[in-house]
Amino acid sequence: MTDNPFLTTSTRNTVAEFTREEVALANRNSGALLETLDCDVTPTGLHYLLNHFDVPVLSAADHVLEFSGAFDAPFSLSMAEIIDLPQITRPVTLECAGNGRAGMTARPLSMPWMYEAVGTSEWTGTPLAPLIERAKPKADVKDFAFIGADFGYDKGVPHFYGRSLTPDEIAQLDVMLVWGMNGAPLLPQHGAPLRLIVPGWYGMASVKWLTRIEALTLRYQGFQQVETYRFRTHEHDLGKPVTRIHVKSLMKPPGVPDWFTRARWLKPGPVTLTGRAWSGDGVPITKVEVLLNGVWQEAELSAPTDRYAWSAWQIEWQATPGQHELACRATDAEGNVQPLNASHNLGGFANNVVHRVTVHVAEPTA
Amino acid sequence: MTDNPFLTTSTRNTVAEFTREEVALANRNSGALLETLDCDVTPTGLHYLLNHFDVPVLSAADHVLEFSGAFDAPFSLSMAEIIDLPQITRPVTLECAGNGRAGMTARPLSMPWMYEAVGTSEWTGTPLAPLIERAKPKADVKDFAFIGADFGYDKGVPHFYGRSLTPDEIAQLDVMLVWGMNGAPLLPQHGAPLRLIVPGWYGMASVKWLTRIEALTLRYQGFQQVETYRFRTHEHDLGKPVTRIHVKSLMKPPGVPDWFTRARWLKPGPVTLTGRAWSGDGVPITKVEVLLNGVWQEAELSAPTDRYAWSAWQIEWQATPGQHELACRATDAEGNVQPLNASHNLGGFANNVVHRVTVHVAEPTA
Repeated sequence: MTDNPFLTTSTRNTVAEFTREEVALANRNSGALLETLDCDVTPTGLHYLLNHFDVPVLSAADHVLEFSGAFDAPFSLSMAEIIDLPQITRPVTLECAGNGRAGMTARPLSMPWMYEAVGTSEWTGTPLAPLIERAKPKADVKDFAFIGADFGYDKGVPHFYGRSLTPDEIAQLDVMLVWGMNGAPLLPQHGAPLRLIVPGWYGMASVKWLTRIEALTLRYQGFQQVETYRFRTHEHDLGKPVTRIHVKSLMKPPGVPDWFTRARWLKPGPVTLTGRAWSGDGVPITKVEVLLNGVWQEAELSAPTDRYAWSAWQIEWQATPGQHELACRATDAEGNVQPLNASHNLGGFANNVVHRVTVHVAEPTA
Repeated sequence: MTDNPFLTTSTRNTVAEFTREEVALANRNSGALLETLDCDVTPTGLHYLLNHFDVPVLSAADHVLEFSGAFDAPFSLSMAEIIDLPQITRPVTLECAGNGRAGMTARPLSMPWMYEAVGTSEWTGTPLAPLIERAKPKADVKDFAFIGADFGYDKGVPHFYGRSLTPDEIAQLDVMLVWGMNGAPLLPQHGAPLRLIVPGWYGMASVKWLTRIEALTLRYQGFQQVETYRFRTHEHDLGKPVTRIHVKSLMKPPGVPDWFTRARWLKPGPVTLTGRAWSGDGVPITKVEVLLNGVWQEAELSAPTDRYAWSAWQIEWQATPGQHELACRATDAEGNVQPLNASHNLGGFANNVVHRVTVHVAEPTA
């Protein structure tokens, strides 16, 4: 069997690079399966999951959302009252800020995502901005904090997961309060019964298990706002905050996999390569290029189903025997393009390097 | 902050033990979240997933199950015809044969599960045995092969995922043909539109994306039957096949986690420890013991909701300041008990060593 070009055990990487704690996180958190990139909507249960603390299993019947702090007309809403509000459903592509972390050199110790921390779901909820208006923020409000029910420690600091958005950000972003996902009630691990969706931003902003919206006359100083999710270059660098998603594309790996290495095997002949591309803040994708036989070639791009949903792309390729390195890179309407090499920051955020896929083309002999 | 007993960065393990390929598998495949062990039924989307090859996204409208080979009355069924068959729904606990592999010394390179590859779902389908009878197996049939639509390579061998059961096993096991999970249609990643559920056996037997049942007059020689899922002690050992689930218990980790290390933090005082226990072949759990302050103490056990579903257990503990190592171990009605140390086999299968959980008890100071 040693002449079999599909025999891949010899190509196994035996260098240990990751700690037990990183693997425990990878077992807990889960990525999309790239072979489902053909689906406009990521199948339920395959949307990526990144949860900082334990998933709280909450009762919708008891759940209350409280508007508190510097509001003139603070109020609380039960889930029954929230579900009675004007309802919208829209597909939104979410990506974890740490997606691609494991592709960085000098990788920080955290969840070791490669390419898979992305997904598109149909979110059902209500626009947030009218509710903030209804609570009448005082004139000197500078920030709105969004607090989840999930609690734990990070770097010794106990806290409920929380994030904030400024009044300007609330005005500019189409933030939703969400209770439904793909036509069904939100699942516990995705924030049931109520979460935020901040379209166009990395996932850390879309607070799950939302219990409280607090109006603040100073900027919010929660751990997840000021201590992490920042582009820091050294220990004492405060860093700019991580906000909108960076332009990115992924390829559905062509052919079939080897179980362990996930090496891809293809027969020679024509093959349609497909994938997805997206950017942040609703900025459209204008171009996807695919590296075929060493030359970047422009793929055919489909219109997204929503401003905040990913675009599909495809391109034909004539697969010839041998090993090939394919890659894809997207460009958005602001001229942002994916880099050929990963940048670096201490937290390992927003690595949008081009997606490379190695394929082996041969007639099967086994 | 250095006096804070909840500061855990100093306890981070920085030894790299795992390869990039293991981590890629851990990102693809997903485990249950142990904090949801209180739920009788694992929330949809959190049931463990171990898929060898790419998930095929199949159309139920086009799907056909074929009975072929050494049958006197072979036939095929559409999904519409299958869903018209007598319907049963039952909760079944499934566990991956590789669960616990990462806890073995001399770990084989494969999916690096720790404790999380287990789940209980309500499966809806029809009993398989009457359909096998209807196809009239010839008198000399020795095996039934179950072939999935998922295709790929393992150790250089291309194959559709397939497994077999003997006529005796079909007679003894309550095998189901399944199209529903937790009251909804089967999800693509769990085998839609049709899969096998073999209650009481490790998950490798429950073939997904089932396309064909073939009656064989010789034993099935498929890769997944003869080359893997065997208890092998050395390279040339054929090994006994992996079949029924070994007795096991898990504890819902008490307290709250540190994000990265998942170390558990508790306040001093009374705490109810809870968890689940299960064994194979429908053998009931008769005892769960929990290691508290160095002494094994018997927990209170609840009856399972079904013969093939896990049992809940609980025990009270008075948490005192300091670091404690808790553990749980189950015993089944056949007297099988979880070992204190992991056994070893080349494939890393069926590690049912006791579940150990380290907790730090202190009054929060931050």
